[in-house]
Amino acid sequence: MERCNPKLAEIQRISGECPVFGIWGHEKATELTYYGLHALQHRGQEGAGIVVNVEGELKAHKGLDLVNDVFKDVEFDQLQGHHAIGHVRYATQGQTGIENVQPLLFHSQTESMALAHSGKIINAYELRGQLEKQGSILQTSSDTEILAHLIKRDGQEINEKSISNALNELHGAYAYMILTKDKMYAALDPHGIFTLSIGLLGDAYVIASETCAFDQIGATFVRDILPGELITIEERALKSSRFAKQEKRALCAMEYVYLSRPDSNENDVNVHASRKQMGKELAKEAPAPFNADIVIGVPDSSISAAIGFAEESGLPYEMGIIKNRYVGRTFIKPSQDLREQGVKMKLSPVRGIIEGKSVMMIDDSIVRGTTSKRIVHMVKDAGAKEVHVRIASPPIEHPCYYGIDMSTYEELIATNHSTCEIAEMIGADSLAFLSEAGLEKAIVKDKSLNQGLCTACMSGRYPIDIKEGKKSPLCVIKD
Amino acid sequence: MERCNPKLAEIQRISGECPVFGIWGHEKATELTYYGLHALQHRGQEGAGIVVNVEGELKAHKGLDLVNDVFKDVEFDQLQGHHAIGHVRYATQGQTGIENVQPLLFHSQTESMALAHSGKIINAYELRGQLEKQGSILQTSSDTEILAHLIKRDGQEINEKSISNALNELHGAYAYMILTKDKMYAALDPHGIFTLSIGLLGDAYVIASETCAFDQIGATFVRDILPGELITIEERALKSSRFAKQEKRALCAMEYVYLSRPDSNENDVNVHASRKQMGKELAKEAPAPFNADIVIGVPDSSISAAIGFAEESGLPYEMGIIKNRYVGRTFIKPSQDLREQGVKMKLSPVRGIIEGKSVMMIDDSIVRGTTSKRIVHMVKDAGAKEVHVRIASPPIEHPCYYGIDMSTYEELIATNHSTCEIAEMIGADSLAFLSEAGLEKAIVKDKSLNQGLCTACMSGRYPIDIKEGKKSPLCVIKD
Amino acid sequence: MERCNPKLAEIQRISGECPVFGIWGHEKATELTYYGLHALQHRGQEGAGIVVNVEGELKAHKGLDLVNDVFKDVEFDQLQGHHAIGHVRYATQGQTGIENVQPLLFHSQTESMALAHSGKIINAYELRGQLEKQGSILQTSSDTEILAHLIKRDGQEINEKSISNALNELHGAYAYMILTKDKMYAALDPHGIFTLSIGLLGDAYVIASETCAFDQIGATFVRDILPGELITIEERALKSSRFAKQEKRALCAMEYVYLSRPDSNENDVNVHASRKQMGKELAKEAPAPFNADIVIGVPDSSISAAIGFAEESGLPYEMGIIKNRYVGRTFIKPSQDLREQGVKMKLSPVRGIIEGKSVMMIDDSIVRGTTSKRIVHMVKDAGAKEVHVRIASPPIEHPCYYGIDMSTYEELIATNHSTCEIAEMIGADSLAFLSEAGLEKAIVKDKSLNQGLCTACMSGRYPIDIKEGKKSPLCVIKD
Amino acid sequence: MERCNPKLAEIQRISGECPVFGIWGHEKATELTYYGLHALQHRGQEGAGIVVNVEGELKAHKGLDLVNDVFKDVEFDQLQGHHAIGHVRYATQGQTGIENVQPLLFHSQTESMALAHSGKIINAYELRGQLEKQGSILQTSSDTEILAHLIKRDGQEINEKSISNALNELHGAYAYMILTKDKMYAALDPHGIFTLSIGLLGDAYVIASETCAFDQIGATFVRDILPGELITIEERALKSSRFAKQEKRALCAMEYVYLSRPDSNENDVNVHASRKQMGKELAKEAPAPFNADIVIGVPDSSISAAIGFAEESGLPYEMGIIKNRYVGRTFIKPSQDLREQGVKMKLSPVRGIIEGKSVMMIDDSIVRGTTSKRIVHMVKDAGAKEVHVRIASPPIEHPCYYGIDMSTYEELIATNHSTCEIAEMIGADSLAFLSEAGLEKAIVKDKSLNQGLCTACMSGRYPIDIKEGKKSPLCVIKD
Repeated sequence: MERCNPKLAEIQRISGECPVFGIWGHEKATELTYYGLHALQHRGQEGAGIVVNVEGELKAHKGLDLVNDVFKDVEFDQLQGHHAIGHVRYATQGQTGIENVQPLLFHSQTESMALAHSGKIINAYELRGQLEKQGSILQTSSDTEILAHLIKRDGQEINEKSISNALNELHGAYAYMILTKDKMYAALDPHGIFTLSIGLLGDAYVIASETCAFDQIGATFVRDILPGELITIEERALKSSRFAKQEKRALCAMEYVYLSRPDSNENDVNVHASRKQMGKELAKEAPAPFNADIVIGVPDSSISAAIGFAEESGLPYEMGIIKNRYVGRTFIKPSQDLREQGVKMKLSPVRGIIEGKSVMMIDDSIVRGTTSKRIVHMVKDAGAKEVHVRIASPPIEHPCYYGIDMSTYEELIATNHSTCEIAEMIGADSLAFLSEAGLEKAIVKDKSLNQGLCTACMSGRYPIDIKEGKKSPLCVIKD
Repeated sequence: MERCNPKLAEIQRISGECPVFGIWGHEKATELTYYGLHALQHRGQEGAGIVVNVEGELKAHKGLDLVNDVFKDVEFDQLQGHHAIGHVRYATQGQTGIENVQPLLFHSQTESMALAHSGKIINAYELRGQLEKQGSILQTSSDTEILAHLIKRDGQEINEKSISNALNELHGAYAYMILTKDKMYAALDPHGIFTLSIGLLGDAYVIASETCAFDQIGATFVRDILPGELITIEERALKSSRFAKQEKRALCAMEYVYLSRPDSNENDVNVHASRKQMGKELAKEAPAPFNADIVIGVPDSSISAAIGFAEESGLPYEMGIIKNRYVGRTFIKPSQDLREQGVKMKLSPVRGIIEGKSVMMIDDSIVRGTTSKRIVHMVKDAGAKEVHVRIASPPIEHPCYYGIDMSTYEELIATNHSTCEIAEMIGADSLAFLSEAGLEKAIVKDKSLNQGLCTACMSGRYPIDIKEGKKSPLCVIKD
Repeated sequence: MERCNPKLAEIQRISGECPVFGIWGHEKATELTYYGLHALQHRGQEGAGIVVNVEGELKAHKGLDLVNDVFKDVEFDQLQGHHAIGHVRYATQGQTGIENVQPLLFHSQTESMALAHSGKIINAYELRGQLEKQGSILQTSSDTEILAHLIKRDGQEINEKSISNALNELHGAYAYMILTKDKMYAALDPHGIFTLSIGLLGDAYVIASETCAFDQIGATFVRDILPGELITIEERALKSSRFAKQEKRALCAMEYVYLSRPDSNENDVNVHASRKQMGKELAKEAPAPFNADIVIGVPDSSISAAIGFAEESGLPYEMGIIKNRYVGRTFIKPSQDLREQGVKMKLSPVRGIIEGKSVMMIDDSIVRGTTSKRIVHMVKDAGAKEVHVRIASPPIEHPCYYGIDMSTYEELIATNHSTCEIAEMIGADSLAFLSEAGLEKAIVKDKSLNQGLCTACMSGRYPIDIKEGKKSPLCVIKD
Repeated sequence: MERCNPKLAEIQRISGECPVFGIWGHEKATELTYYGLHALQHRGQEGAGIVVNVEGELKAHKGLDLVNDVFKDVEFDQLQGHHAIGHVRYATQGQTGIENVQPLLFHSQTESMALAHSGKIINAYELRGQLEKQGSILQTSSDTEILAHLIKRDGQEINEKSISNALNELHGAYAYMILTKDKMYAALDPHGIFTLSIGLLGDAYVIASETCAFDQIGATFVRDILPGELITIEERALKSSRFAKQEKRALCAMEYVYLSRPDSNENDVNVHASRKQMGKELAKEAPAPFNADIVIGVPDSSISAAIGFAEESGLPYEMGIIKNRYVGRTFIKPSQDLREQGVKMKLSPVRGIIEGKSVMMIDDSIVRGTTSKRIVHMVKDAGAKEVHVRIASPPIEHPCYYGIDMSTYEELIATNHSTCEIAEMIGADSLAFLSEAGLEKAIVKDKSLNQGLCTACMSGRYPIDIKEGKKSPLCVIKD
């Protein structure tokens, strides 16, 4: 009888939200990776790292902090090479060690490799067990290291073939980047749950999880990596191969709803534009009540939808809630009694705007409902006559097994409550969600294969079979 | 012949932008001051300090960093008292020492006092010289210390009378807060160039430079302190007195244009609302060209005006420029050659929104013109067909002598150039400024004495005589 | 009726142990001051600072840490000048603020000055009161600042005359160093309780509290500064003047007993040699019992005396106690229960040496007796058959009013207990102290006026009248 | 043709000087390990770590700093368990990464283990190659990790058998400690090049590289671990087994000469006593010249020998050189030109003692000769008439392959120069070394098998065959 190691379960929570970045063939590769990671900082704040190829030798610099702080004392001149990959870590409990900060760097007597990873391997527990039974020692709890051991199984060389074979043993949602002494690889899982895009900066190739990193460094977008595709970049050449048949595309809808930066394009769709359209669709499906005075959004991710809702409704869009820009890692959270006395955290209401108004408030999603409740009360305390809430995505009723940090079934408010019940629970005078059809309309411009979405957390239709993962249920459901 | 000490000139640049905060009579005074300063962080990022009255004894904690970082290791329990004042420091060159971080704390054998100050004393150089000739030793370069020495001149006690007399020797723009073992004082200069507001949190009195600090801690706004008024707070009593006749109110217009947080109210006018109205007035005075596709604003301070402009124009408001939230104190600025290759700093264009569009871009003001030029080019590089610029305030043609960090005559682009010339210099397809009348219309709701504005930097009409300061011209004009 | 401010009393505890250093006329003045302070580190570990004259401008760098750590990130190239003074701070409670770290730096519109000070001003409380009544604001609690205000009283210029007049108002034990834009001053009190020596390094003049600082930087000793002498150093000239009649020399005997480094010479007497001689005198006055096997010393300050005792006795000198070199500022002290279980702090016994032996243990002095008790028990626990203790100085029965950090009457074990009682209290099998005559014989080579000692803490004969200080008894006796 | 990876060669320099410590069965295991490592700090200053068993789970805390600084912010309460092992790292170039700080911690789904290691594996390069060919990925460059992979080869369980088998594959000098969820292991190589001792603290077992760690925590010495012995400690039981036949004991003579703390006993011989005896033997073999005035030692490690030399000679022992206690990690080394002007580093001469004397100077050993030269000159510059040097160990003519940080053949001054030549090179008026026979006489009390010494660096007689290592000469000889 197999038992699940709860500690491993906890630490396998490498999230799909963690972004990756890579550049090949630029004399300032390290600095550019720094700026690229900087543009991707919104996807994780817990750690960051860069591995750079300095004349064939791989050197790492990592830390448990924001990108700026990890690199603040680094002399880029002393870490300079032409090829580099980087990673930003999303915070999950239990992964506090520096050893889990990516890219992971592996040296052997014959060759070295660095790996960075986004996503989640569903059969990680099984693969790890197999490797350990063969005598492998895994030093981190990350899915990334599993791939490294699969590639090097039986002392194989690192090349397209060993990487493709190793990827084929993985079952899950992932985007990988690998750097060796003479090549850079990038691969996306066969369903394309996440994205990886290819760009050009002069002669240099750039790969990133979001296109906003291209704009940050002045690179030009070339194309997205396809599901099941393995990209190999070496001296003056980018080569494409397929390690797996492309499955029906199932790009994570939450990327558009709240994960990505509004200036990114994913699958040729601008994120701000799709959000604004979600707001417009929402205004059509669930219009503001006749007496609504103003439309406000919950910063930052709901602003675009609020603007769209206002535009569609003909109501004025106002800045009703302010997000304090200085709430960083060192902010001391107010104690419970101070919060009860009204001390605010990240968000403050704009009393001068809200007072006496019937407010139409747009939020991007509701997970547990606790944040929504706090915000609705905050807006009412600031003098709003009424607070009507519209959510620019469908109710989230199912957990994500592919790497997005969400709750279990028990914690998801929409799993067990009707919209009316939720409205009452959060204190809203009315509440409505965008339909799944509306969401799709807002995102998908062309209903070809390539623009399919993963809406598993809303619909329960999981594009990748999760049965295998179910074998070690504690390990998986924990996420 | 008197010579000016250039070093002192430089270090007298304590800015009017530095905010103050005070609370009297709350058992968590230190923590609440921390949150209050946190809400005021946007006015300065260089340093912060709190002095708290712990059972009659004044204790200070200060640092050269953001509020969060200055206090991150402080055990509030060990710095707890019922009365406290705090200060946030705005960055100016040459004031790198911790000794210049306020509140300043002065001990004598008989009594102690803490002072925090916002603004600028025009006759500081003369007063300092007089004090030194009498044997006083001033240890900092701040105007704040001058007031302390004037109060204690001839060994006087600290009370309303000695404070009023001392304030009457000052010539300039200022807001002062003083904390002693048994009282808290707050005073505003006779012209009321800046603001100080009074709030209540339970039984506790709160004073702050901006009302957003009240909302942060859940306090209720009571009233603004009047020009020439000295407020004395002691056990269970707030007392008002006048140390000077109130002059015609001349509240700094730049407070509304860009200094304040949009959720603050100043002189009963909400800042976001006034900015939105500036945008609307601007759209009336200088409408978008017929072919404009979208309206965008330069984040953060121009967003409200852009929304107003869009609403008035009937054009869609879009998020065309993103401000990176993670550009903090430790951000490594891209080198010149990387910037030329397109690496971005704080702002990124949203290519997916801008590309192929004729863009109406709203900014709050133009000082030197260099930033505007950079942004216009950035937007064009992201594919904008045309970039039309509208500025939601009049041209700045004159330096500020009252504490706002601006340029000298030579550096102000509008001093020597026409609007057409500026348009060409910054690369805009068209350019217009809001008129002074339009600005006033957007801010002033009631043309009573109390809502007069200081528009000296736009109009050259200085409400406080600067002749006295002219005696030591190098010292003053330097700002 | 005048009351004493207990807070001031506490913070006036600037100790006579704090060393000063100055150099005039060397292009690497800052670095050399760093090394000089480094050699003086044993006299204080709480803080350090340097003020350097950079082309007429005085610049300070200070910190609350060891010399190494205060300067670890300093680029000496950017703090380079030809003249500098420095100070190391001895730890006393209540002086935790950076503002009390010396040298203090005072700027005025006409001139600047830096002051560093060692010792204690007995009439500090009275002088401070006078100054405050005249309107002066003193920002630190140090005696150093008092001198600055006395010099600048009525706006006087800083020169030999104003400094001499100011020094004449002081009553106490002190060594001062002053640096201005064009001069360096050094002064010693009329009784010469402490020492200041003059050295030469090439053309550069060097002043230091101990000659070991000269050896550290390769400077040559020239002569000691005389009691009541004011040295003025300026471009190419050292000038001597007297601000007061020289009193009978009363150099602190504790300098030889434990304060100074063994490689220093004070008043032409080498400290190690004097200590070794104390050990020899002690062996003559109170020989080891016939059955003693070995002589050991308590590191570091008693090693020289132990060697002398062994040499005189013909007994082998052994390393019976080891001092851990790594017990620094960050060492976590063992909790009470761990100490009781035998966990050691700074000193460890050498079981292999001590076990089964009758041990003759030499210590330099006994103040409260608690440390002696701990060490005797530690040596017995390590297997010593007997522990005979000899103290290389007379019993300390009186507090020091001149700046050495000692206990009050109540805490001094020798005030109220006979030698036999003390032996019993500390667990020694026998105990003897060196006589005052023996101490003098060991130190004084030439009984001229200039080699007189202050033995007030042993004899009760205070060379400087302490009556004036008695006016505010709490303030003074506290030390 | 096999090529050596120079990077690995460099990073294999885990030194035999690195001490280990372990404790089993004490409720304050973490704190006691901290104090134990503290006592062993003299053997390494670059890093330290502890792994503690918290109710079956292994938790690590490590850092690149002194023991004090690594643990200064650790709340021992939150890292508390009953069993712990610790390690201190000796500085060698190229091992700057935290990943090389021990104990190394390995997790698998079924069990975890922590390893700490002292010494050097001669066939490390070969073993690493074999492991990598089988698909193992080694993440550090340490010999320690090799043992972990050997133990887990083919997915074996961690037990006495798998550990013994793994140890038998190692060829070299080593002391290992292993901690698992329910056991603690300690093992010494078959020649016993280094030492491990067993102690008791109440019911708790303690293991340490030097017995001074027992005295530090109040533990009692029980016995030394034997060469080829594997100790297994579990709940209430210590079990001994042999994984290899004991070879002729070859305990590193340098342990006595300079590596160990004088209060440690190794193989029942007190280190201070042996050093003092080396000094006595030296005085017999190579007496001081008739005109010698004083005997001095180079602190710290030569003091004991100097005392012995003085005692045997009847000459006075003096403190002629002082070691500055505050030269820590942050000390800024004087630049070349300042050193040439006489600025001192760690050691200062005591001019008052040395001046005009004919000095007999004792040092423990000469490696490259550069330090000796510097010290002789320093003593002469301080006024010594003559400086006669005696070295309390034989000339070092051969490199160490077992883990002691020494030079290559080319750098060892005694390899290519006669004693007379060396005397001239270092500027000594006379020079002599202790003979190998004298050294042995000073250390070995009982010529039984168990007290044999390794004197390979002096004699060239290597007790462990180094041929195997010679296969990859660059890797090994580099040390």
